[in-house]
Amino acid sequence: MSNNIKNNLSRRDFLKAGGAATAATGLSLAGISSATAATCSTLPEKWDETYDVVVVGSGFAGLSAAIEAKNANASTVVLEKMPVPGGNSTINGGCIAVVGSDVQKARGITDSVDAMMGDMLKAGLGLNYPLQARIVAERTNEAYEWCKNYLGVKFKDKITQFGGHSIPRSLTTQNQSGSGIILPMLAKAKELDIHVKTKVYVKKLINDEQGRIVGLEVITRFKPGKETSTKTKFIKAKKGVVMANGGFAADVNYRSSQDPRLDEKLRSTNHSGATAECLKEMVRIGANPVQLSWVQLGPWTSPEEKGFGMAPLFATYSAFAHGIMVSPKTGERFVNELADRKVRADAIVKTGDIGIAFCDSIGASHSSHVMDKLLGRKVVLTFDTFEELAAHYKIPVKALLAQIERYNSYVEKNIDPEFGKPFSMKQVAIKKAPFYAVRLWPKAHHTMGGVEIDTKARVMNMVTRDVIPGLFACGEATGGTHGACRLGTVAVPDCLVFGRIAGQNAAKA
Amino acid sequence: MSNNIKNNLSRRDFLKAGGAATAATGLSLAGISSATAATCSTLPEKWDETYDVVVVGSGFAGLSAAIEAKNANASTVVLEKMPVPGGNSTINGGCIAVVGSDVQKARGITDSVDAMMGDMLKAGLGLNYPLQARIVAERTNEAYEWCKNYLGVKFKDKITQFGGHSIPRSLTTQNQSGSGIILPMLAKAKELDIHVKTKVYVKKLINDEQGRIVGLEVITRFKPGKETSTKTKFIKAKKGVVMANGGFAADVNYRSSQDPRLDEKLRSTNHSGATAECLKEMVRIGANPVQLSWVQLGPWTSPEEKGFGMAPLFATYSAFAHGIMVSPKTGERFVNELADRKVRADAIVKTGDIGIAFCDSIGASHSSHVMDKLLGRKVVLTFDTFEELAAHYKIPVKALLAQIERYNSYVEKNIDPEFGKPFSMKQVAIKKAPFYAVRLWPKAHHTMGGVEIDTKARVMNMVTRDVIPGLFACGEATGGTHGACRLGTVAVPDCLVFGRIAGQNAAKA
Repeated sequence: MSNNIKNNLSRRDFLKAGGAATAATGLSLAGISSATAATCSTLPEKWDETYDVVVVGSGFAGLSAAIEAKNANASTVVLEKMPVPGGNSTINGGCIAVVGSDVQKARGITDSVDAMMGDMLKAGLGLNYPLQARIVAERTNEAYEWCKNYLGVKFKDKITQFGGHSIPRSLTTQNQSGSGIILPMLAKAKELDIHVKTKVYVKKLINDEQGRIVGLEVITRFKPGKETSTKTKFIKAKKGVVMANGGFAADVNYRSSQDPRLDEKLRSTNHSGATAECLKEMVRIGANPVQLSWVQLGPWTSPEEKGFGMAPLFATYSAFAHGIMVSPKTGERFVNELADRKVRADAIVKTGDIGIAFCDSIGASHSSHVMDKLLGRKVVLTFDTFEELAAHYKIPVKALLAQIERYNSYVEKNIDPEFGKPFSMKQVAIKKAPFYAVRLWPKAHHTMGGVEIDTKARVMNMVTRDVIPGLFACGEATGGTHGACRLGTVAVPDCLVFGRIAGQNAAKA
Repeated sequence: MSNNIKNNLSRRDFLKAGGAATAATGLSLAGISSATAATCSTLPEKWDETYDVVVVGSGFAGLSAAIEAKNANASTVVLEKMPVPGGNSTINGGCIAVVGSDVQKARGITDSVDAMMGDMLKAGLGLNYPLQARIVAERTNEAYEWCKNYLGVKFKDKITQFGGHSIPRSLTTQNQSGSGIILPMLAKAKELDIHVKTKVYVKKLINDEQGRIVGLEVITRFKPGKETSTKTKFIKAKKGVVMANGGFAADVNYRSSQDPRLDEKLRSTNHSGATAECLKEMVRIGANPVQLSWVQLGPWTSPEEKGFGMAPLFATYSAFAHGIMVSPKTGERFVNELADRKVRADAIVKTGDIGIAFCDSIGASHSSHVMDKLLGRKVVLTFDTFEELAAHYKIPVKALLAQIERYNSYVEKNIDPEFGKPFSMKQVAIKKAPFYAVRLWPKAHHTMGGVEIDTKARVMNMVTRDVIPGLFACGEATGGTHGACRLGTVAVPDCLVFGRIAGQNAAKA
């Protein structure tokens, strides 16, 4: 049965209430007619603004949706709660997993959609929505080419094998930051005359008597703490509302209801705006929340830094790829440093202690671009000998030396019999002083769960599992694509691919 | 901020709508005043029936709640959707984990709340709500004594150590069925003059303008397929509504939105009434759904049987313990046959094929008490040779013979280097014909997720994480107590303990 029918009034209630409802006041029938329905609505007496497509959120997904909608001739606005656009996308590493990129081809690396799907489903523990996951994998190269050729994004001529990926397929923006994509997107939005409005907080989604989402009630000039302000504006969306509001990893109160371990003691890599109010509002209006208890912890964050920090760059490009991580308790490795994020983060937590990740000066050269800052902030420390390193972190030195020798022998044999770490990045033994080290403790990074969408990015109704007309969602706001664990560098293509799909479909809705 | 305030009308809307609302018709202000609120409500013109406490569901949790509410002098009714009361509780094994029972004491078994908590949190992967889990562990013996002494439930003088429990603490009813508890509960309900009404389907929860749950809209003389009937009755709950509606393991459409692997090809051990409509209705009214994607699969069920069947007894006591499980594709083992439920079920699903579990006649002797029925129903088949077994199930015979030889050598060496299966049950090599085999495919068994409650079984609001006044929930309808995996024999104490808590608190609400 359709959401539409569900939201309609039972005949009995209609006869009971209808008379008074249509009488007097500017209140539409919807206010009463859906009084017993899955959601209810009061259409405003007048709309303050009207667009074809209203996009909520200005990260990769939101801006992709807005650009596509505008290019499909829909008048489009982007609403951003924060004072600056970009959300987590601007502070992310700017890495994108791409199947069949020019860079892979130039290096003779064979890859396939099935291989990337396989990696996603393995990390996702089979919870992934297969169709959504495949669409992301299939369209990674199209999204990457769109960034390069249409947006003018500059990528490094460099390829990396990220944790959980069976093949090197991850590319990075020149400035190794998501801002390398967000800034060109904002420039394109300006060029296309798409207004990106900041400090606009979504208070309510508004549906009509048929249950179609027709607009939003928003708080303008929003300041944190003013969430309940009644000084609101009504914005009409003639064709569709695209929710690209991101995840809720920074929302301690809400995330801890899904995973009680994620209390205030556990920090987040996210910006302070990564909270759950839009998720809750979509659920209120009838959306189906799926897989919400899967919150990803980043294994590469440093307790010495706030938020995401820069430690993840050193850990990913140098320490994990070309070095090892040991427990200070034992001096021994406890996980494949290139396993997926969940495996690594769970492994660190399980040791009950900080992880110490380090590499030699050759390994460190792979993150030279950030090294000055990391050393200046004392997030990464250098040591002339392994003994000094062991002494500083109070690691049993004999065990550490034995571990390093053992690991180096694996590198030379090109096989890790202990943890199965892949040596496909021309790893060399950890030998050349000085040695660079970082302390690591996980932080809440990505919320895999969100609202259910279909392959057209249409939001599904919880009761009927039919689409909610007029409502679209993409990016971290949605659940299912990544299942139990989102692989590193797959968030960007997910946001680009489904952001574009959402914008294209909203424009013709 | 309280749910109450959230549900109130903004002043602006009030002025806009108030006039007409109070004029004409029996429709209360709530119909309009909460039109923009988290939920909305139409109070009926008249209530058809009124009670202090209305309990939805007649399993362990619902009947426990009703009995406690009535004993607290609240007029109480139980509404059951199905033609017969009891739900899954009547078809469950009637096993209850108890810390510090008379049976443990008589056998000198030392146990503790911390030990049971530890087992629950280990299986729950730490996702458990610690306070709820502890309350269940703390009150297991009180619940067990209540069953024996107040309800007159008969238990066997026998104690078992179930999978995932570190100590033998599981007790079983005389008839080895949950009906051994449900029937005394129904007798007690009758004695206390609690009316258990069957074929009553909950269509809506009704809240007042303050957001308090004040009653329900129900379909009486309910028949499946009539869920949208508008011939409804309104039942008022003066003090509280207790939702003990169970889980949704039999709801293919809904469960597959949380775990796409659980499609129609995967059957359920549950009765057909284990569907999600009450969960959805609680979420519609504002409840916080938590950990919904954790659905437990039983690894010991046969596609030859409907529901739970008897195959689990042969699989558990004979084939898994004293034999092996192979994939018919490869003829090889793929999991430790004595791993926990989740590990084994996931492994079978991952092979993409039925698991063939078999043992020899010595192994089969451990389930002799059910063997006649299993053979009679052709759920278990016997073969004089491995070759015949391989031919029947189309297993590559050479690979199978090699696998059996390899496994038998492990049994003799008393160590399984491939999957680490423990040989602590005096296993013998698989040799003595005839050989007994069963086809296994997991079935959805228990939904760990549900609505969030507090320690008083009050349902929490998703937006505010404050209580929803007047709404209580208990048993499988709730999430959090078991986290990622509910241990065998902990469902019964969960339902008894939180059912009683819900009834006691609803009566004084």
